[in-house]
Parts: sequence; structure tokens; C-alpha cells
Amino acid sequence: MASRALVIGRFQPPHIGHIELIRVASWENSRVIVAIGSAQDSHTPRNPFTAGERYEMLQAALAEEGIHNVDIIPVTDVNRNAIWVAHLESMLPLFNTVYANNPLVRQLFEEEGYTVRTVQPFKREAVSATAIRSSMGAGLSDWEKLVPPAVARIVGEINGMERMRQINSTD
Amino acid sequence: MASRALVIGRFQPPHIGHIELIRVASWENSRVIVAIGSAQDSHTPRNPFTAGERYEMLQAALAEEGIHNVDIIPVTDVNRNAIWVAHLESMLPLFNTVYANNPLVRQLFEEEGYTVRTVQPFKREAVSATAIRSSMGAGLSDWEKLVPPAVARIVGEINGMERMRQINSTD
Amino acid sequence: MASRALVIGRFQPPHIGHIELIRVASWENSRVIVAIGSAQDSHTPRNPFTAGERYEMLQAALAEEGIHNVDIIPVTDVNRNAIWVAHLESMLPLFNTVYANNPLVRQLFEEEGYTVRTVQPFKREAVSATAIRSSMGAGLSDWEKLVPPAVARIVGEINGMERMRQINSTD
Amino acid sequence: MASRALVIGRFQPPHIGHIELIRVASWENSRVIVAIGSAQDSHTPRNPFTAGERYEMLQAALAEEGIHNVDIIPVTDVNRNAIWVAHLESMLPLFNTVYANNPLVRQLFEEEGYTVRTVQPFKREAVSATAIRSSMGAGLSDWEKLVPPAVARIVGEINGMERMRQINSTD
Amino acid sequence: MASRALVIGRFQPPHIGHIELIRVASWENSRVIVAIGSAQDSHTPRNPFTAGERYEMLQAALAEEGIHNVDIIPVTDVNRNAIWVAHLESMLPLFNTVYANNPLVRQLFEEEGYTVRTVQPFKREAVSATAIRSSMGAGLSDWEKLVPPAVARIVGEINGMERMRQINSTD
Amino acid sequence: MASRALVIGRFQPPHIGHIELIRVASWENSRVIVAIGSAQDSHTPRNPFTAGERYEMLQAALAEEGIHNVDIIPVTDVNRNAIWVAHLESMLPLFNTVYANNPLVRQLFEEEGYTVRTVQPFKREAVSATAIRSSMGAGLSDWEKLVPPAVARIVGEINGMERMRQINSTD
Repeated sequence: MASRALVIGRFQPPHIGHIELIRVASWENSRVIVAIGSAQDSHTPRNPFTAGERYEMLQAALAEEGIHNVDIIPVTDVNRNAIWVAHLESMLPLFNTVYANNPLVRQLFEEEGYTVRTVQPFKREAVSATAIRSSMGAGLSDWEKLVPPAVARIVGEINGMERMRQINSTD
Repeated sequence: MASRALVIGRFQPPHIGHIELIRVASWENSRVIVAIGSAQDSHTPRNPFTAGERYEMLQAALAEEGIHNVDIIPVTDVNRNAIWVAHLESMLPLFNTVYANNPLVRQLFEEEGYTVRTVQPFKREAVSATAIRSSMGAGLSDWEKLVPPAVARIVGEINGMERMRQINSTD
Repeated sequence: MASRALVIGRFQPPHIGHIELIRVASWENSRVIVAIGSAQDSHTPRNPFTAGERYEMLQAALAEEGIHNVDIIPVTDVNRNAIWVAHLESMLPLFNTVYANNPLVRQLFEEEGYTVRTVQPFKREAVSATAIRSSMGAGLSDWEKLVPPAVARIVGEINGMERMRQINSTD
Repeated sequence: MASRALVIGRFQPPHIGHIELIRVASWENSRVIVAIGSAQDSHTPRNPFTAGERYEMLQAALAEEGIHNVDIIPVTDVNRNAIWVAHLESMLPLFNTVYANNPLVRQLFEEEGYTVRTVQPFKREAVSATAIRSSMGAGLSDWEKLVPPAVARIVGEINGMERMRQINSTD
Repeated sequence: MASRALVIGRFQPPHIGHIELIRVASWENSRVIVAIGSAQDSHTPRNPFTAGERYEMLQAALAEEGIHNVDIIPVTDVNRNAIWVAHLESMLPLFNTVYANNPLVRQLFEEEGYTVRTVQPFKREAVSATAIRSSMGAGLSDWEKLVPPAVARIVGEINGMERMRQINSTD
Repeated sequence: MASRALVIGRFQPPHIGHIELIRVASWENSRVIVAIGSAQDSHTPRNPFTAGERYEMLQAALAEEGIHNVDIIPVTDVNRNAIWVAHLESMLPLFNTVYANNPLVRQLFEEEGYTVRTVQPFKREAVSATAIRSSMGAGLSDWEKLVPPAVARIVGEINGMERMRQINSTD
């Protein structure tokens, strides 16, 4: 099998750090599977967007960037770490490399015998999805430069900032 | 269809602010559905009473107040905001108006095309279920004036204060 | 506590045998709790109607019959027989008698120490919900005399026969 | 929004009837979402292949056929018909047309206000996934002409026929 | 690690064929893990006994037989074949051999790289749990010679035959 | 029935306070059931070890201490306090005494009519599983004297400290 990489994230929302990571994986592998985690969650401060909305955002952003060898697949949680890798293996096409900066993801895949690669994207330190969501919820616009133009456009179309504001004001 | 209102709450326990809200809804509509949310939860600091106990409390309190055009229905959570309105629609009789002060509830129903009404009951600011539970758990009695007499009576019958004390002392 | 009876059924749909059973329970007890079981199911040949639709049907039929001391409460399944009685106890107001003709229901409640009463309603043998659903799905009208008038009316309003026909033609 | 079609199936395995249906949808719409249903199931007589395997099969078959405007997305079941459409809406990108021959799928989408299109593909009558699975499990090869070449190749690579044989011999 | 065997069954109820299989495994390995599958099920025609009851039966029967190097562990189902082996690995102590006659169990463990051993116990063909349950439900006693004495005794103590009779008479 | 005690804990990991408690219960009863709670959880800061690993640790530690009349049984959560006792009753062999220091556990069992015993083990105050896990995650070794030697050995064999370090560094 040619090299196939797995990139996992919640993408709430996809930002330029995510795109950089996917771009690196797409250079280094013949194909990349981007798994949208916690697909079942939406309308919470930590997970404002549905899996479908995040799919649209990622797809549009990757098209914009000319990254083509990527399959995007939403995956629901199983809420049991010990079976999470088996869950992903059953839900996704075959992959042989995992790109992950999250230590738990690294631990779980390494216990199952995978090699896990860490990527320090160039602009990574400047981008935090948490900060982007805070900015959105506060009605600011400084988050827009931290996401691909397609993501900013889609957030606008679905009234994402108003949704964030309502969600954040719930006890 | 004559106007049917939905009022949603956890009612842990029902207090005079809840009764006021239901009374307003019962004036303004031919029938009111009171959905007891998080029906599956009990014996926690945030959700001390079972759905059955909360049903008894609400029913007795509404009888006491002479509010008769109300259907009380416990509803379990689905833990997925994006399908919560569809879940309620399948579990409840038809309704066409929603009374909600909670911003998330408002957001979810508005995304599905409902008109959501906010009610600022007269005495509302004085009543917080959280404060009532704290007072109960501390063995005080000042919460009793914040709930209908029937609720105070039922809490006594089921040893609710002792339950709250035990639950609160759990790490 | 005054005598409180529990009557459990799926009520797909409520028929005159159900109403007779509830009437007997309502004579013999100060209050009756009618639990609508398998509340989460709908749109299947065995469970065509939602919990909300069944609630409407039961409520209208009991009003029509002048039976007033009844609380109707939908209850979702737990799919584990060993904890089903505990589940009902937590979801429902207190009850001390169970009316059940179903042997499994009898077995489960008796193992928990309840006395279970069997009622042989006068017309019972003539009424089978299975037969009613078959007739509905086949586009016949002979089922209408086996259900309270309110049920036949509501089935009409929600296009229940067309729904049954579509469901039944699915592999 | 340009026309976006939803095609739903279990694709156990994808066969030439499925490909024809997707081809029609891809002609008539700017994009097609192919949802792989019952994504959580595998290794049963009715659902032998994992979601990941079915994704590979569909993707390879569509590439082989030169059908490019398709997004493939696995979706787990919710096991509650009344909320299934809301579940799909949250998990998938926006769509405005549904292609479905299954009467239950038609019923559920029509109740939510969608227009559902039925397609009678040219060769459809000759192709049944059930028959293909039976043939596979019996160790025959006549099923191979009923699936795209890519599907036959992948079934071979994953020892699909041996898996079918083992599964079928389980009580 | 010394050799550790896994034996899996539903043990509804444990019979002399099961005991023979466990005896062989206990001879051939330093320790045996007996997993009681479908632990969550009870009070159905196919799964009449609770996990706790089956634990008591197995423990008493193995003591009676002088088989001591066995750990009995109930395990709930996950209802997803693709993650079932990972589920067992997380719930059970380490094991390196699997004894299984069930083809699906064999298939699932072999796909994960395990060696699976088939045992044809001497008296096996004479013993079927299905036949034992039928006999119990019919009020016969010919099943008693097919189970260890301890199992027959416990079935008596918990009124198992009456339970079977009630369950079997439920539509 | 001779006296049978239930001891419940998460045992993350088993420490000398747990062993003391089990020893007291084993003196005072003919048999002890040790239920490993939250069996489904692992690889989190609060629940680092799988049910299988905790089973191994407890079994080895009790053997080391010469405590023999104990059955160890992992039990998954039900996440509903009102049915938790019924869940345990179905999953475990019969028991008539509960040893619990946790107030919620006490409350739930007392509501079901059990007598609950509190044990203040001699060295208890010195031992906190939370502190042990913190020490492990920080790469210290002072936790080793707070657990039975067998537990320290198994933690070493499964690289438990490295796992804790990775888990703790995850956001």
C-alpha cells in the first residue's frame, strides 16, 4: 500500500494551523484521511459546529488551497479510549501513518503499534481553536485572519457568530 | 390547532419561578406541555430528584395553584444538540410555541423555525434552583419559601434534604 | 398512599381493549399511571406511531370516555430486563399495584415483590393491536371499530394509514 | 445552493445497480453525497464489510467509472426513525434532493418536507445485494459480474469470501 | 507470560459440554479466563439468567469439578463486531490463546492475529444449551442430566424453570 | 446464605487502603465480591488503567496478601444513579452486606434497603488514589510504598508511568 496518513481533529472550526498540518501530510503521503472527530457534537461552546458544517468548511478550504489527495470523514466518539483505535480502523479506509500532536492520541496509537509523527507547522503557535471560538463568541473579527477564507465565508452564511454568542450566554 | 405551548425545565426542584412561568403560558395558550428534562438523572448535586419525584412535585403544585390545562411529560436527554428538537417533537404532543429563557434552547428551536417566547416572571430574579439546592444540602430551611407548599411537603416525605446532604458530601 | 395502579402498554395504537383495562384500573384505584412503553420507537411495522402521537390518542380517548384519574407518561426502553422495574420506578410517580397480562411483565414485577393483577376485559379477545395494524397497512377500515373514535380521528389527521402502507412495503 | 443530492445505502457491497443510481444522481445534480448507512455494522451476514472497507470499494468504483462530483460519508445508525432525518442533516453537508427507492426512507424524508426521487436504473432488477452476499458466502463467483471490477478486487484483497463463509456458518 | 487461555460463552446455562471445554483449557494452560458474554441480558428465552446467576453457576460447577485455575469475568456486549476483540482485551486480563468453536468468534480473533483453537469435547454433540432451555421452559426434567449438579441446584433455588415458563409464554 | 460482602471501587490503582478494606471484609464475611467500577474507562487522568489491568493488579495483590475468599468482577457504569443498584444486583453474585465509605454509594444502597458498613482502615488517611496518580504522572516514585508490591510491579510492566505522563500532558 502506498503511504496513507491519518490526521485527526475536531476542527471547531478548521484554522490555518490545521490546513498547514494537512498540507504537510499531503506532501509526504500519497493520500491523507482527515477524520473529523466528535462528529456527534454541536451547539456547545467547545463544539459549536455540526459534522456536516465542518465537512463543508474543510472541503472548501482544501479546494481553495489546491490540496486534492484528501478524504474527509466524520467519526463519532466511542467514549472509551481502549477501543478508540479499533473504532477508527473500522470506520476509515486503511492508513499506515498517524499525524498527531495530541499526547493522548499518540499514546493510544503507539500502544496499538503505530508510528505517530509530530508536525510543528510553521505558524502553529499563533493559532488556537479555543481562542478563535472565544473571539467569535465575543462578536470580534480578529479570528477571521486565523481561518481560511472559505471557513470565514461559511461561518457567515450559517450565522455562526450569533450561534456562538447564544451558546456562550447559556449558564 | 389551538395554541399549545411547550415549557421545558429540569425542575430540580420546581420553584415559584417555574410555577409563574407555567401560569403565564397557561393563560396565553389553550394547553401547556411541561417537559421535565434530563429525566434519566437523579441523586447528583445538580439533579437530586428522579423524574417520578419531579412529576409528583409539579402535579401537586399545579393542582394547588389551580392550573389545570397542563400535561407533564418527562423526557430523557439525547446528548446531541443537533437532534434534540426532533427528539422532543417525537416524544411530545404537538406544540406551536416555546417558552424558554435559556439561550441554547432558544437557539436550537429557532434554527428549526420555531418562535420562542421569553417570559420575565415578576418574582423570577429571586428564585434560583441552584440556590435552593445549596440551601437544602446545607440543612437550612430558607429554601422552603421559594417553592410551592406541595414541593416542600414532598421533599420532606422522601427525605430529600438528607439525600442532598449525602450527595453533596461525595467527593 | 392511596392505591395507585400502573398500566403498561405500547399502545400501537390504543384500542378498546386498552381502554377497558384502564377503566377497570381507574375504578379500582384512586389514580392510574398509564406508561407508554417503547416510547423511542416509531415508523416501524410493529411501532408505527411516535410517543407524542400515542399520548394524544390516549388522552383524547380517555377524555371521550370520561376517565379522568389517569396520568399518561411515555417511557423509553432500557433493553435490559433485569433493571427495567428500577427504571420504571425512577421514571414514574409512586405506584403500588401493577395491571399486566403480559407474562414477562408479570415475572419482572413479581421478582421485585410487586403484586400483579391480571384483568380479562369483557371484549378483550376481540381486540389485537397486531390485527389492527395489519388492517391499517392493507388500507382496510375494519380496524376503526376496534379503536375509540378519537383514535380513528387522529390516525386520519396524521395520515397514519399511508404511513403504515409505506412502512409495510419496506423490505 | 446548486442542486445537491443525497443517495443513501448500506453498500454491502456496492454493486452495479448502486453505481448506476449514483451516476444518474451525479448527472442531475452539481454534487452528490453518498451516505454509507449502518456504518457501525460489520462481520454479520447482512453487513459483512466495515464502513472503511465500503468506503474504499465505493471510492475505487467511482474513480473507475469516472464519476467525480461525489462525497462519500459513512453514517452510524441512530435506531430511532423519528430523529433519523435530523441525524443525517447534522452529519452531512447540505443537500436538497433525496434519491431513494426504499419506502421507509421516502416516508421519513417526506414527513420532513423533502422531495424524494425514485430512480429505476436500467439494469436494476438484475442486481440484489442479498443475492451477491449469498453467492459470496457459498464460495461461488457469479457475483463478480454484478459488482464493479474495483469491488471484486478489494473483496479479494481482504479475503471477503472467506469472511462471508465463516460468518454464514455461525449458528 | 505463561499460557493463558480465553474461553467465551453465554452459559445460558452452563452445561457439561462447557465444563469439558474449560477442563481441557485448564489442562493445557496455566490459567483460564472464562468470559460470560452478553452479560447485560436476562429474562429472555435465549438469555434467561443474569450475569450474576451465571457467575454463581459456573463458580459452583468448577469447584465441584475441582477445576481451580480459572477466572470468571462477565462481559457486556458492544454490538459492533469490528471492535469486539479490542473490547475484550480491555476488559480482561492478558490472554494469548483463544478456545472457540463459534466461527464468528474465530474469524474476529484471527483477523486480530490470534491463534484460535477448536476443541471437540468428548460428549459435546449431546449437549445443546438451546435444547436445555426448551426442556426447562416446558417443565421437563431431562435437562438436569446435561448440566453439572451445582447448576441444577441453583436453577432450583432461583425458580429458574418457572421463570423460563413465564418468559416463553410471552408473545 | 452465608454472609457475602460487596466492596466497590475504581481501583485506579489498587492501594494499601483498598487492601486493608478488603481484608476486613474478608475477615467478617464468608466471601467478598470486589467490584471494579467504571470498568469501561481507561487512559484518562482519573482512570488510567483498563479493567483488565486493574483485575490483574487486584488479583496479584490479594494473592500476595494471602486473602483468598474474594471474587473480583469488573462492572461498567450505567450513568443513572436510580438504577445503579439494580444494575449491580444483576451483574454480581448475591451479596447481603455493602462496605462503602462513599456517601453516594451509601445513599443509593440504603434507599434500596441495604445495610451499609463504613470501615475506617488503620492506615487509610495516608492513602489517596488521586495523590498516587499525581505522583505517577510526575515521574516520582513515592507512590510505590502506597501500593502493594504486585501493583508496583505490574505498573512497571505495562509502562504505566509513561502512560500517565502522556495522558496528563493532554490539554
